[in-house]
Amino acid sequence: LTFSLFQDISSDNVLDLGCVFQMLRDWVAIESDSSNVQKRPELHRMMETVAQKLQLMGGTVQLVDIGEQELPDGQTLELPKVVTAQFGNDSSKHTVCIYGHVDVQPAKLEDGWATDPYNLTEINGNLYGRGASDNKAPVLAWIHAVEAYQALSMDLPVNVKFVIEGMEETGSNGLDAMIMAQRDTFFSEVDYIIISDCGWLSRRPALTYGTRGNCYFFAEVEGPKQDLHSGVYGGTVIEPMTDLIGILGDPSGKILIPGIREAVAPLSDEEWKMYQDIQFDMDNYKNKIGVNQLMYSNKVDLLAHMWRYPTVSIHGIEGAFSDPGTKTVIPAKVTAKFSIRQVPDMDPAMVKKQVTDYLHSVFAKRKSPNKLKVTMVIGAKPWLADTHHPLYEAGKVAIKRVFNMDPDLIREGGTIPIARTFQDVTGKSIIMMPIGGFDDGLHSQNEKMSRYNYIEGTKLFIAYLNEVSQIKRTSV
Amino acid sequence: LTFSLFQDISSDNVLDLGCVFQMLRDWVAIESDSSNVQKRPELHRMMETVAQKLQLMGGTVQLVDIGEQELPDGQTLELPKVVTAQFGNDSSKHTVCIYGHVDVQPAKLEDGWATDPYNLTEINGNLYGRGASDNKAPVLAWIHAVEAYQALSMDLPVNVKFVIEGMEETGSNGLDAMIMAQRDTFFSEVDYIIISDCGWLSRRPALTYGTRGNCYFFAEVEGPKQDLHSGVYGGTVIEPMTDLIGILGDPSGKILIPGIREAVAPLSDEEWKMYQDIQFDMDNYKNKIGVNQLMYSNKVDLLAHMWRYPTVSIHGIEGAFSDPGTKTVIPAKVTAKFSIRQVPDMDPAMVKKQVTDYLHSVFAKRKSPNKLKVTMVIGAKPWLADTHHPLYEAGKVAIKRVFNMDPDLIREGGTIPIARTFQDVTGKSIIMMPIGGFDDGLHSQNEKMSRYNYIEGTKLFIAYLNEVSQIKRTSV
Repeated sequence: LTFSLFQDISSDNVLDLGCVFQMLRDWVAIESDSSNVQKRPELHRMMETVAQKLQLMGGTVQLVDIGEQELPDGQTLELPKVVTAQFGNDSSKHTVCIYGHVDVQPAKLEDGWATDPYNLTEINGNLYGRGASDNKAPVLAWIHAVEAYQALSMDLPVNVKFVIEGMEETGSNGLDAMIMAQRDTFFSEVDYIIISDCGWLSRRPALTYGTRGNCYFFAEVEGPKQDLHSGVYGGTVIEPMTDLIGILGDPSGKILIPGIREAVAPLSDEEWKMYQDIQFDMDNYKNKIGVNQLMYSNKVDLLAHMWRYPTVSIHGIEGAFSDPGTKTVIPAKVTAKFSIRQVPDMDPAMVKKQVTDYLHSVFAKRKSPNKLKVTMVIGAKPWLADTHHPLYEAGKVAIKRVFNMDPDLIREGGTIPIARTFQDVTGKSIIMMPIGGFDDGLHSQNEKMSRYNYIEGTKLFIAYLNEVSQIKRTSV
Repeated sequence: LTFSLFQDISSDNVLDLGCVFQMLRDWVAIESDSSNVQKRPELHRMMETVAQKLQLMGGTVQLVDIGEQELPDGQTLELPKVVTAQFGNDSSKHTVCIYGHVDVQPAKLEDGWATDPYNLTEINGNLYGRGASDNKAPVLAWIHAVEAYQALSMDLPVNVKFVIEGMEETGSNGLDAMIMAQRDTFFSEVDYIIISDCGWLSRRPALTYGTRGNCYFFAEVEGPKQDLHSGVYGGTVIEPMTDLIGILGDPSGKILIPGIREAVAPLSDEEWKMYQDIQFDMDNYKNKIGVNQLMYSNKVDLLAHMWRYPTVSIHGIEGAFSDPGTKTVIPAKVTAKFSIRQVPDMDPAMVKKQVTDYLHSVFAKRKSPNKLKVTMVIGAKPWLADTHHPLYEAGKVAIKRVFNMDPDLIREGGTIPIARTFQDVTGKSIIMMPIGGFDDGLHSQNEKMSRYNYIEGTKLFIAYLNEVSQIKRTSV
């Protein structure tokens, strides 16, 4: 039955594809950038839009107030509400809860986008726009999967719940507390949690069984009370920028912070073998990102450092001169932003202490009169699942049905903090079922979702709801 | 005669002070930021405004086309025209040429300004606004000095010429060629060149006899073809930001580049004694900039490193994440902006080679697949004058008349590239006669010019024109 359903998906009686693409266009047009406080009204509007859509479909919808966010300057700002929805309430069926987010990373045309990032633009079958792949189209694909059953007047094979948030890109502020608060109500009847917030590794569909966490730091060095003319004052003041770059500068490109490497779980022989079998084209990967050399030249090392070893990235510096042109300034207060990806068995609280202690000790050696302040603004744990769990077995069957091939079993270098929270708080099993392409450019310029992945992904979700309904109660 | 004139300056028959402040307000309101190509129309409007004012005063005015500027991306942009003007053409009199600039450094309210930087605002006798002190009020003070003579229907004691440019803050692009071209015409009858583009060292008026030059560099590290998600790609790519910070990071805060320190003229005993005698309050200086420790703890070392030793400042990084909030990005192309202040006997061409070679050699050690490109975008030479020249003696007399004290003889840590060009091309003698206060905040937030310095500075210029007319021909 389901099989014929997703074959029919492009016929008018199941889904109006024009409508499907227009919806993604409408959602991408909302600048729901959760890291920019000035875009907060857009973010609120985004959550309202999601709630209205689910309500129109007949879901039982709530906009859950999750309180306020404290900004670094001490001010507070209303968090975007979390949308919860429920379709079906048949206690004889399994209940799945689909998690997604509709906030996005920052994007500006002048960052190097070929098209307006908030105006969904189709080029060669790809739909370009900020948030198209991360995570608006996957959330819509789940909505369309439910609509497909509704369009054919078929009962959903499982009860379907939604939890859609608007703060994922900055650490899911407020969501943990909301899940905790509703653990024994909204989440009590949930059997399985499904997350589709990542991508495949190649053209082969994938199931994801692990993610890295993330500890995001601000290291602020403050000196003079205001910016100074570098001609007039250069040579007399100890410049905060010199201090900051001095403590960040590291000739090796490795993590020098004591204790971090030691905490990492060793690579097992079984893992090594799994990595060895994964379809992964190193040259393709290099071409895609446009480099001729990677950190590691063999597949296993590369995958291991992408998925299960920590890494540090310096994202940028706030407070220094960052515009085009020249400015002869000594910036008075500069804040480096960097993050360390977490893996088992690292502990964010420990990493916070290790990083803070290390930077303060390096800074102390400079004997600078400037002040250093280290803050961990995001502390998200990694997550790991069992690839032989029935949820994953059901996923393998659904993928086989839609794509006629076996999935790659992969991990994710990025962070989906909520996976870990769901696991810790609800105790439910989780599966990550990505539909994003391997080259979607998440967080980058020219992010896109292909028509193919969007539509075939919707079919996969339709099939998967059916497969999950077959899982035997005893195996839960 | 002159003495009574500047005593009358605040009476209506000499200068309408309301008008004087309104003119400064009007000029500051024009966002003539020469480093921002998007503000170029404002810069053109600024030059037109200056030309119109000088024309209204009866000057012989020209807007001199100095061609186009080549941008880093290969595009070209029209340079702001240079305004030249002439008042008086009496061959029995000396001819002075006053140089000034009406372009400004970038300024945004959110950089930490207490008031709108382009809306001149008076607080406690200070006039806050971008360009107020650097260099719009000093240019206007010279204009008002000429107007004062005109208001009393007095002949100017010397012929007065003006050269007002609009590219000083980014290296006086195009001006050198213009001076060269007009060496035997506009500049041929000029006896002396006067520059008032700097400030005093304390509350005591000053004459400036030297400036540092400036070599401004862009060091660009380019890696992936676009920004990447730091979770997804962190650990696999060699990050340009790590490379850039690695080659800039220097534990000492000193200039490590071989050959630079060696080129610096040694400090003479005479200089040491001069510095010793200068009125300079170290505690005041520390308070003003809001630090409790400086690079050097004694006055002579500090002044020497402010004026006659080179220094390096890192101004910022373009291309990395610089906004508030968090973004988990691996920036694909990052450009550090730093400058090295030049002193005798450094040669910018040599510094360019030394810096480029040094950065490439440090970068080569990293064995990074990323590409490094080092560009010197400004290369301005230092300048040094003889403090016993008749021009300086005339300055000392004028200061004594207006302020009833002897000036400090000082140097300037910043750069006025044109001083060196005037000297090299025209062979004329130059004096720098600042009227800016020691705490005007040039290039910083909350730049200001005090009413006192603006008005007393105008009086000084009136008196100085008279003193210069007394210089004996033989001593030229």
